[in-house]
Amino acid sequence: MTATPTGTSTSDGTAARPRRADALRSIEAIIAAATRLLAVNPDASVNEIAKAAGVGRITLYGHFDSRATLVQEVAQRAIAQTEKELAQVDVDGDPRDALGRLLETTWHLTHRFGALVVAASQELSPEQMRRAHDEPFARARRLLERGRAAGEFRDDVPIDWQIIVIQAILHGASAAVHRGEITADAAPTLVRDTAIAALSG
Amino acid sequence: MTATPTGTSTSDGTAARPRRADALRSIEAIIAAATRLLAVNPDASVNEIAKAAGVGRITLYGHFDSRATLVQEVAQRAIAQTEKELAQVDVDGDPRDALGRLLETTWHLTHRFGALVVAASQELSPEQMRRAHDEPFARARRLLERGRAAGEFRDDVPIDWQIIVIQAILHGASAAVHRGEITADAAPTLVRDTAIAALSG
Repeated sequence: MTATPTGTSTSDGTAARPRRADALRSIEAIIAAATRLLAVNPDASVNEIAKAAGVGRITLYGHFDSRATLVQEVAQRAIAQTEKELAQVDVDGDPRDALGRLLETTWHLTHRFGALVVAASQELSPEQMRRAHDEPFARARRLLERGRAAGEFRDDVPIDWQIIVIQAILHGASAAVHRGEITADAAPTLVRDTAIAALSG
Repeated sequence: MTATPTGTSTSDGTAARPRRADALRSIEAIIAAATRLLAVNPDASVNEIAKAAGVGRITLYGHFDSRATLVQEVAQRAIAQTEKELAQVDVDGDPRDALGRLLETTWHLTHRFGALVVAASQELSPEQMRRAHDEPFARARRLLERGRAAGEFRDDVPIDWQIIVIQAILHGASAAVHRGEITADAAPTLVRDTAIAALSG
């Protein structure tokens, strides 16, 4: 975490503790609000984020010296969370079941972080963006390769195309939920069943 | 067509003809260049469009009094072309074959006009945008309903979701061609086979 609580410490540490706890609560509220707003609107302003977090502009700028710093922090947390959740998915066993599990977790991450990737691409370096995407793509690709070799997924189309299709279905579903065309509850099953059907041919 | 050739006519009409022919050629070159550039970058500038059309800024502004006028003309032509080409698709007979034909034509239109829809949405009224989309959507929906009733497409998922998936695959393919990940030649078959597989389940 790059943000620093602004609570000052005293020599015996007692007076500082409530202030530090307040500061940490503010920081967490700001990051949660920024994640939520940027996922829908990558151009969400500092004022909107402060308001949604229930803090003032001054407080926000006390913790994050610029919008760029805040977006970077939010993006780094989203990347860390994505890597942690994807690493926990069991991609062994039946390739279709494994892909179903990977899709369900990826759906929740895609929908939670949504347009945040657009905001992040404005503030992170191309190298940081590439690293953030490489490992999730590599994980999906390894599973597709295994499923194609096992005859569970069609192998008469490029594997790159299959990854494009999975991404397209995930992002299409996320946009459709934001527009109110399908519910967030229905989405994971629709995404999983449709993507597996598209890959099975 | 809303643009007017600027060639002046004389009483006997002879001197005006070459100038009018030149003006019409310029207008067509400008519209072709604008369509091509806006399909890739919805924020393409008047300067970029004039340069790609091989005409000067002054000539362009002689035919179109603003960027908005040009974008409106390009969008109206794209809408008319889309309606004409889709109306020619035979959507009778076997629903899967019919969907294949509809997808192939829709692919070519989606890829040709691409991000133009973004540029158009900034210059056309919501009512004009809605009308431009309504008929293509209604055509796809009627075919899906017929295919679901015939047991050719799965009917255990919402029909709205199936339309979202078709759109997502079309737009994903178009973006992938622009990024150079798949070729424009390979795209129509990939789009058709994958969408039909996704709908068949």
